[in-house]
Amino acid sequence: MRFVSYRTAAGVRPAAVVGVHGDERLLDLTAVAGAPDVVALLGDPGALARARAAIAEADPAELPALADAELDAPVRPGKLLCLGYNYRGHVPDGVAPTASDPEFPDVFVKTPNTIGGPDDAVAIPDAALDVDYEGELALVIARRAKEVPLEEALEYVGGYTILNDVSDRAWQRRQSQWALGKCFDGFAPLGPWVVTPDEVGDPQQLDVEVERDGVVTVAQSTSTTIFSAAYVVHYLSQTMTLEPGDVISTGTPQKLPAAQDAHRALVPGDAVTVRISRIGQLTTRFTASADEGARR
Amino acid sequence: MRFVSYRTAAGVRPAAVVGVHGDERLLDLTAVAGAPDVVALLGDPGALARARAAIAEADPAELPALADAELDAPVRPGKLLCLGYNYRGHVPDGVAPTASDPEFPDVFVKTPNTIGGPDDAVAIPDAALDVDYEGELALVIARRAKEVPLEEALEYVGGYTILNDVSDRAWQRRQSQWALGKCFDGFAPLGPWVVTPDEVGDPQQLDVEVERDGVVTVAQSTSTTIFSAAYVVHYLSQTMTLEPGDVISTGTPQKLPAAQDAHRALVPGDAVTVRISRIGQLTTRFTASADEGARR
Repeated sequence: MRFVSYRTAAGVRPAAVVGVHGDERLLDLTAVAGAPDVVALLGDPGALARARAAIAEADPAELPALADAELDAPVRPGKLLCLGYNYRGHVPDGVAPTASDPEFPDVFVKTPNTIGGPDDAVAIPDAALDVDYEGELALVIARRAKEVPLEEALEYVGGYTILNDVSDRAWQRRQSQWALGKCFDGFAPLGPWVVTPDEVGDPQQLDVEVERDGVVTVAQSTSTTIFSAAYVVHYLSQTMTLEPGDVISTGTPQKLPAAQDAHRALVPGDAVTVRISRIGQLTTRFTASADEGARR
Repeated sequence: MRFVSYRTAAGVRPAAVVGVHGDERLLDLTAVAGAPDVVALLGDPGALARARAAIAEADPAELPALADAELDAPVRPGKLLCLGYNYRGHVPDGVAPTASDPEFPDVFVKTPNTIGGPDDAVAIPDAALDVDYEGELALVIARRAKEVPLEEALEYVGGYTILNDVSDRAWQRRQSQWALGKCFDGFAPLGPWVVTPDEVGDPQQLDVEVERDGVVTVAQSTSTTIFSAAYVVHYLSQTMTLEPGDVISTGTPQKLPAAQDAHRALVPGDAVTVRISRIGQLTTRFTASADEGARR
């Protein structure tokens, strides 16, 4: 199942995406599943079963087009935790790519002001200096997780989505901690939907691809991550209680060599598409100001 | 004025602290100020005026003792932003203390699970390795702040409080980013109250003192910070919108030389008191498990 959050005059509501590729329709789940939002849905087996039954019974031809809906981020995490250097070949500045794997995950936080819906443009503010993209597989926590054993860790994951970890490289490198380069308003477009684990299968067998200006700049399998999705949930839960709706983004692959050589900062008018197999794609437009960024 | 948040069966409520030192009383402000919580109060000049009038009219003898109230954190920030190395003499590992001031603030994030009330004990979890304290002046944002000029920055600060930025040094140093060492559950006791700017005066003329086991381990003036409170609000607001209730903690002074030499990890049974002139003091007890940590 694929779940979205969409904006209505009465607030954000949960829905399932049904129908065929290119003609997706929107099935509102507020009433049928009895869950107020996607986070509640993911954590409630009964609501998930009701959603599944409603999807099976729905006639897509009678439903509104997904393309006409205004999507919010599928979840609004209390904590958005991100990994650095989690793909083999993606190494810190000045470290040889042949260096051995790190012993521990490198974790940083993006603040709530960064979260954006899948169709929200990202405004590049005046203070930005060198804006870049990172296409990442993100996990959504469905149940409270505290000191979770490795072998049970994926039971706490309610689904998978896509994060563009937009980053200002100049701000990121000003000091030892990356927070300000990572936490500009809107620098975490998320979505378009959360896909349930039964449709995703093994999260270490997904292809991550990023396209910019019609050129593929990243293409790597999640099988090349250093720390698996399960390990990261297990590891993080040793220090902090993970709450339903929290999102853990599993890091970006290194760009392809030609894309590294051709690096230039994102500017208004640019667009970046992140595709992950069995999940979908997230296209983010960049604009000059928040006014232009209302909706594409 | 000093504002607290206290726990009742009906939820957390805002109150003012009145009366004399050692016999503080609690004046509930929910009805008189018309503000649902301390954050709303700080951002509403009318509510602040009503609170001030109610405090002037109150007879402390008729009010319940503050000591009998169960305090929550005075605010629950959406974003808790912290500074590293912001006092002269507090330098990164391996950097000489005579090195010149950094050009930019070093900023990191503590997640919402870290926030604790001023009397909540901090449970040292099984995974912790080397728990340490940092006594810090913290600013509470009262009004939404975006791209704020330096000379107006303090107008967005609704008051000041104390943060103990509890940190696990071993986890902090495992990788380049400090998040996991900073984000254990409960590792940000905050309070006991927010003091309004009129009572604090110049935030760069406050004495920060920390006491552990009856020994003063930190004693330094905020006049020795590298980046002022005003500068930090201005600087952060260039990248992110600061929201009412957000907290910015201004960093810790270096420990006194004898305390550095005597460093040992905090263990269950320890207590640390942070005192800041014109604000108050925050004492944090450390316990072995969350069960013991219910309330001292």
